[in-house]
Amino acid sequence: MVDECSGTDGGDDGTAALTGEARLARGRAQLARITGRSGEEVMTALADVAPDFARYIFEFGYGDIYSRPGLDLRTRMLATVAGLVCLGHAERELEVHIGSALNCGASREEVVETIMQMALYGGFPAALDALFVAKRVFAAHGLEPDAR
Amino acid sequence: MVDECSGTDGGDDGTAALTGEARLARGRAQLARITGRSGEEVMTALADVAPDFARYIFEFGYGDIYSRPGLDLRTRMLATVAGLVCLGHAERELEVHIGSALNCGASREEVVETIMQMALYGGFPAALDALFVAKRVFAAHGLEPDAR
Amino acid sequence: MVDECSGTDGGDDGTAALTGEARLARGRAQLARITGRSGEEVMTALADVAPDFARYIFEFGYGDIYSRPGLDLRTRMLATVAGLVCLGHAERELEVHIGSALNCGASREEVVETIMQMALYGGFPAALDALFVAKRVFAAHGLEPDAR
Amino acid sequence: MVDECSGTDGGDDGTAALTGEARLARGRAQLARITGRSGEEVMTALADVAPDFARYIFEFGYGDIYSRPGLDLRTRMLATVAGLVCLGHAERELEVHIGSALNCGASREEVVETIMQMALYGGFPAALDALFVAKRVFAAHGLEPDAR
Amino acid sequence: MVDECSGTDGGDDGTAALTGEARLARGRAQLARITGRSGEEVMTALADVAPDFARYIFEFGYGDIYSRPGLDLRTRMLATVAGLVCLGHAERELEVHIGSALNCGASREEVVETIMQMALYGGFPAALDALFVAKRVFAAHGLEPDAR
Amino acid sequence: MVDECSGTDGGDDGTAALTGEARLARGRAQLARITGRSGEEVMTALADVAPDFARYIFEFGYGDIYSRPGLDLRTRMLATVAGLVCLGHAERELEVHIGSALNCGASREEVVETIMQMALYGGFPAALDALFVAKRVFAAHGLEPDAR
Repeated sequence: MVDECSGTDGGDDGTAALTGEARLARGRAQLARITGRSGEEVMTALADVAPDFARYIFEFGYGDIYSRPGLDLRTRMLATVAGLVCLGHAERELEVHIGSALNCGASREEVVETIMQMALYGGFPAALDALFVAKRVFAAHGLEPDAR
Repeated sequence: MVDECSGTDGGDDGTAALTGEARLARGRAQLARITGRSGEEVMTALADVAPDFARYIFEFGYGDIYSRPGLDLRTRMLATVAGLVCLGHAERELEVHIGSALNCGASREEVVETIMQMALYGGFPAALDALFVAKRVFAAHGLEPDAR
Repeated sequence: MVDECSGTDGGDDGTAALTGEARLARGRAQLARITGRSGEEVMTALADVAPDFARYIFEFGYGDIYSRPGLDLRTRMLATVAGLVCLGHAERELEVHIGSALNCGASREEVVETIMQMALYGGFPAALDALFVAKRVFAAHGLEPDAR
Repeated sequence: MVDECSGTDGGDDGTAALTGEARLARGRAQLARITGRSGEEVMTALADVAPDFARYIFEFGYGDIYSRPGLDLRTRMLATVAGLVCLGHAERELEVHIGSALNCGASREEVVETIMQMALYGGFPAALDALFVAKRVFAAHGLEPDAR
Repeated sequence: MVDECSGTDGGDDGTAALTGEARLARGRAQLARITGRSGEEVMTALADVAPDFARYIFEFGYGDIYSRPGLDLRTRMLATVAGLVCLGHAERELEVHIGSALNCGASREEVVETIMQMALYGGFPAALDALFVAKRVFAAHGLEPDAR
Repeated sequence: MVDECSGTDGGDDGTAALTGEARLARGRAQLARITGRSGEEVMTALADVAPDFARYIFEFGYGDIYSRPGLDLRTRMLATVAGLVCLGHAERELEVHIGSALNCGASREEVVETIMQMALYGGFPAALDALFVAKRVFAAHGLEPDAR
């Protein structure tokens, strides 16, 4: 898996001087780096119901939080996978972020270990459901079971 | 912070042949390495109500899950912090595992970044409460604010 | 959107003297006013598994709680939408009550604002999923995107 | 532990004809049988903030749900303990209902088994916290550790 | 409903001397007794993503927890149903364990009573969704509505 | 209760051109209007652990979300109370926002109605705990029980 995310710690504290437009651009670039997608799908999906919510995802989620230095993106995405397993209900988001974890340099094995560990905190059903989501994502990424 | 956890990936798959006694010993050793405590407090606290539960924590939690190879302990503990923030109600366990994360080589900054990021998934109140727990743990570990 | 709910604050405290039959009738009337449906679907769906549960929904949910004075129905339904977003798992109920909110005089925009705000408390995935539910409900109600 | 609850299955379906006053009386009697308390504390505590909420607890919670035939009270209270452990945040209610479980004929051991089992579903922190609540309740009931 | 589970309290405390292999065998036997299935489906489903997780479900879930004496299996399964309703998101697991409850001697009515009661703790939407799951399980088990 | 919040709908869409500094100023002003506090406590409390998190609360929470037009602040705060009750674990935040609801023109009665209604969705224990929080807030605001 090529790590597309090596440049992620270049974020900086100069947020106070950024205009919203610059935050948005920063966020969209970071979303692309993390998820390997452009974010057009979420913009399109929200366009006729809550376009500003797509903007907040870009600006705050990716532009502010995920652009922060201080923690590498591989660890950030595994932490997100862990959190989503414990929430229990966020299957769609879990699917996206398992893909992001792989995209940011986490191995298939590391994703599986993170999910299994959450059985201790979020319970076995949450972990089991998440493993089935992971299985689908691995298949979509062409990751062979043997390759694990 | 000295990393006491560097030897953690030495776990192995030979679990099937282990007796319960050996799993228990493995788990208690791993708990000590991760938390920097002996686990006596939890044994004592549970002794007259559910002594077997302490055994399961050692055997399954630390002996099976946290002894697995495939993910380093620093990342494991940050994932646990993330999961506990999203659960929302596990303040006591969060306090223990923020300490474990520090003990396993995570920096104060990495713990804070992990918690802040969870505002996106578990909400701002859960993250805010967790930051106050972290503040207490950092103080107990003698980590100066400036040292961040 | 015609407000069918203007008469809702006519509820009263005389519950103590009501028979169960009267509470049931009050509840079914209030359910019809709020949801714009008769409640037959839920009665039919529960008829062969837990018919009393349908009765409790009518009697307690609609007859006791939603018949109380002291808070207008538009606000009640937006509060319910907020609560359901934070629960995270109640997609079916969310769909019904977004419809009820519209039926009780909330605008499409007010529903969207309520859901987006909950990203702060129940997290972004819960809010995002709820926005997609809202989009389906708006479409079913023939509310044009432009009409927002 | 004397089982005060043996008469609980005498509930009936004749609810439809009951006035609210009769439901309230039925509920208060059932609450006393289950919890071994009169319910005055909750009435007093809610008197100046939400007196009707105390009434709903009596009428609906104890008068409707807990007065139903079809499941014995000992099992009902263990099911409630299980549910409250999985909710994770309901410590006060858990304390009351562990007491109710004992009062309805569950043994100390059965309460502990129920809680430990929930580690599989609600996670270890929720079960561990609940065991500490149970320990306090057992002590308050004068149940010796050895007596287990 | 034939009670296949009457022998379940034959579990014992001699876990410390068991090898992992013996725990696994004990767990698989207990799983078969409780669920009426062999557990092959979960092994197959997890085989290429997390085979060890299937092993933990057998060893820890069924071999350790569900093999404990001190609480009969019928009550254990109703407690599990209660816990899963309150979690809210575990529909798949709920379906399996409603079947297990029936298999362990709980009646259709007892399952329904347990779920309805959880409306008090996990809310009405969680209970309502669970009743619909139960309806499907009852149909799959050929339990006639009238037979209730 | 004087409504300090009447000017809240003056927010606008011109966010894209705002610098972070301007968003921060807008957020702090809105926080003061809503909570009746300056926000200094949270800044001070977070200063040595996560000062940027205080900034995000101001900028995103109050500057972006709570500054949006399209929903009046009284309804916004009651929706927040509803959401926090359903989360179950956010007692501290609930205390702050019950105060904010009163500050934004909601009556004591409306707060109580909102909380009681959430018993249907988040369960009775969550609603009961929230009523006790509300009782403390009402007392701190000098709202007499009789004044309800």
